Amino acid sequence: MSLIETAKRAQEASNKLAGVSSQIKKKALLAMSDAIEKNSGKILAENKKDLDSAKGKLNEALLDRLKVTEKTIREMALGLRQIAGMEDPVGEIIEEKSMPNGLAVKKVRVPLGVVLVIYESRPNVTVDTAGLALKAGNAVILKGGSDAINSNKMLAKIISDAACSAGIPENSITFIDSTDRKSVDALLTMNRYIDVVIPRGSNKLIQYIVENSTVPVIETGEGNCHLYIDEDADRAIIEPIVINAKTQRPGTCNSIEKLLVHKKIAKEVLPGIVRALRKHNVEVIGDEQARKIDSSLIPATEKDWDTEYLDLKIAVKVVDNVDDAISHINEHNTRHSESILSKNAENVAKFMNQVNAAAVYANASTRFTDGFQLGMGAEIGISTQKLHARGPMGIKELTTYKLEVFGKGQVRQ
Amino acid sequence: MSLIETAKRAQEASNKLAGVSSQIKKKALLAMSDAIEKNSGKILAENKKDLDSAKGKLNEALLDRLKVTEKTIREMALGLRQIAGMEDPVGEIIEEKSMPNGLAVKKVRVPLGVVLVIYESRPNVTVDTAGLALKAGNAVILKGGSDAINSNKMLAKIISDAACSAGIPENSITFIDSTDRKSVDALLTMNRYIDVVIPRGSNKLIQYIVENSTVPVIETGEGNCHLYIDEDADRAIIEPIVINAKTQRPGTCNSIEKLLVHKKIAKEVLPGIVRALRKHNVEVIGDEQARKIDSSLIPATEKDWDTEYLDLKIAVKVVDNVDDAISHINEHNTRHSESILSKNAENVAKFMNQVNAAAVYANASTRFTDGFQLGMGAEIGISTQKLHARGPMGIKELTTYKLEVFGKGQVRQ
Repeated sequence: MSLIETAKRAQEASNKLAGVSSQIKKKALLAMSDAIEKNSGKILAENKKDLDSAKGKLNEALLDRLKVTEKTIREMALGLRQIAGMEDPVGEIIEEKSMPNGLAVKKVRVPLGVVLVIYESRPNVTVDTAGLALKAGNAVILKGGSDAINSNKMLAKIISDAACSAGIPENSITFIDSTDRKSVDALLTMNRYIDVVIPRGSNKLIQYIVENSTVPVIETGEGNCHLYIDEDADRAIIEPIVINAKTQRPGTCNSIEKLLVHKKIAKEVLPGIVRALRKHNVEVIGDEQARKIDSSLIPATEKDWDTEYLDLKIAVKVVDNVDDAISHINEHNTRHSESILSKNAENVAKFMNQVNAAAVYANASTRFTDGFQLGMGAEIGISTQKLHARGPMGIKELTTYKLEVFGKGQVRQ
Repeated sequence: MSLIETAKRAQEASNKLAGVSSQIKKKALLAMSDAIEKNSGKILAENKKDLDSAKGKLNEALLDRLKVTEKTIREMALGLRQIAGMEDPVGEIIEEKSMPNGLAVKKVRVPLGVVLVIYESRPNVTVDTAGLALKAGNAVILKGGSDAINSNKMLAKIISDAACSAGIPENSITFIDSTDRKSVDALLTMNRYIDVVIPRGSNKLIQYIVENSTVPVIETGEGNCHLYIDEDADRAIIEPIVINAKTQRPGTCNSIEKLLVHKKIAKEVLPGIVRALRKHNVEVIGDEQARKIDSSLIPATEKDWDTEYLDLKIAVKVVDNVDDAISHINEHNTRHSESILSKNAENVAKFMNQVNAAAVYANASTRFTDGFQLGMGAEIGISTQKLHARGPMGIKELTTYKLEVFGKGQVRQ
């Protein structure tokens, strides 16, 4: 089948899906969940193929992203069951009013239509994405990375079959079984059939899609995240948060990549932080001022301030004050997640208001930018742009609305 | 000043604007309103220059769009006063929750940032756009069409001066005084400084921007709108709605361009409709079946079904039933406004649910797709895409949100 035909069929499926009842969708999500657990052996076998061919090519953080275990399978299945249990957003009357001329105006929540997701590495994206899209009444076209092609293909087949058996229209979940970039290019200009494209992956992937797509894009995921340690930081929380935000899962976008330290406390706190980071095998690099305090730090280059390492590596910079920290962040961040450690309410308020990011934190790890952690359920990605949705995008963020106007012959005066 | 410098300054202004009080914004909007009325002579003089050079080049509908009168000046001033009186959306706590681990999560409404509006012809867009953007705390960059350059420049100067005198940061309202397309191209790739681009104008303009912008676009305005007359239509409302939807202001995007008539009533109603349209100087073209009923209709070509005339012209097509009408509309429309005339509740429901458009009507003119007419106040455009906003975009649609998370040292488990 040609790609344009694939996209057309996805749109046809989405038209039907918009009218499928909440009950059928729930039944399908539970069937998908069961099917994943029942077929865990097949999934692990396919994933092993992917892991074997990735060895030596990918670093530890990326291998971690690629790996599927019994635990991640249980998590995927649990995610689908949680989605099944959530309220169906479609059909909600968001607003309703009667105009003086008698027109009845309703703002009704409807599915987006066809959602294209282009992603790398993590196979669970296949399942989470399809589940969320389905719950919100959307058809989804999945284009995964070549590293995970075997895992993704198997997962997509299992959930698509289970969904269809439960009464979901065919072609509601489409997996593009190709690792060819040309197929991506073609999909990115099918505005008539595809309503939105959501890239999940590296900066390079996201930039490529932003530059080449005429279909509306929601930018997700790249996280050059900062932790700013203010002069008035509670000393007791510094090291636990630095270590958690950097090392708990370094391959994820909400991990910190940069540490900004107020100049008045740098001498006091930096040596301990560096020791703790090294104990966790983190490579620490620093700007000139940081290296005056600890000359063993590797010198940072200008490029470091704009780099998302996704690895056990961090760059440290000494800043003059909160304003200096904010302006450095706004110049170099990727609008994802930023945190300040401070007991000074004024500095905290300034940071929260002025930092340009989807999520801003005071006295907490940036690792909480995640649908489950913030109580929004499974997410399709973390939006780092300002249109439509910002931060974790769950079910509601996969819908739009339509104005329905009922009259009795009204004309405009 | 270079364009990139202009965009940087707009972003700096937007950072300051985000913190400007509701009171100052209100004062500024009232000052802008007063300034427009006070300077009506200057505005009309500049508009006359534009009209003089447009004569012979533009059709009547486009000249109508370009023309500024005492009445439109009063409307612009009134629009600003209405915006001034509306509630400030910025700072609203959209959602607030406390997580089991003690994290306090707030979803706070914030401005979009920098909004670029690229538009043609209608000079009132300059004023409406700047007013709405300002109310929502955004900086705006205005790039108007060459036809209206003198009118736009004068309007922008008047309102920008008035806003600054009232305490709004400089560079919050920027008018690009150039008719060069290269300046558009440059702005369309300034993702770091511009948060959204909203094109208002012809299909050609919109397509150009969709294809060339890496900044997120909200598509607006192109309206290849349909009126479907069902077998069960109330005969009494047909002609008034057809005439209103086509002729009240043919140069606007919510006017109908196509008439679909159920085959069972075509013979009965079409001759009267054609007579009434011709009385209003409308050129009527038709498909083969329509021409069997009235051979004086000009034959329609395939291209007609995809054309927005923006003029006193309409194409008529005879359809088999509501399903045929819906599938024709979904294949050819621009997702703007569509209407069905029918007393059959089932057909109405089907049309409302299945037609892919921002606004769907039953038994009313499509001319109501307008912020004021639907009770949403002044609008910055009519979105015809599904992301972020659909239909008339008012103040709320010019904001986004940010997640503010407050902790006491929490780390992720």
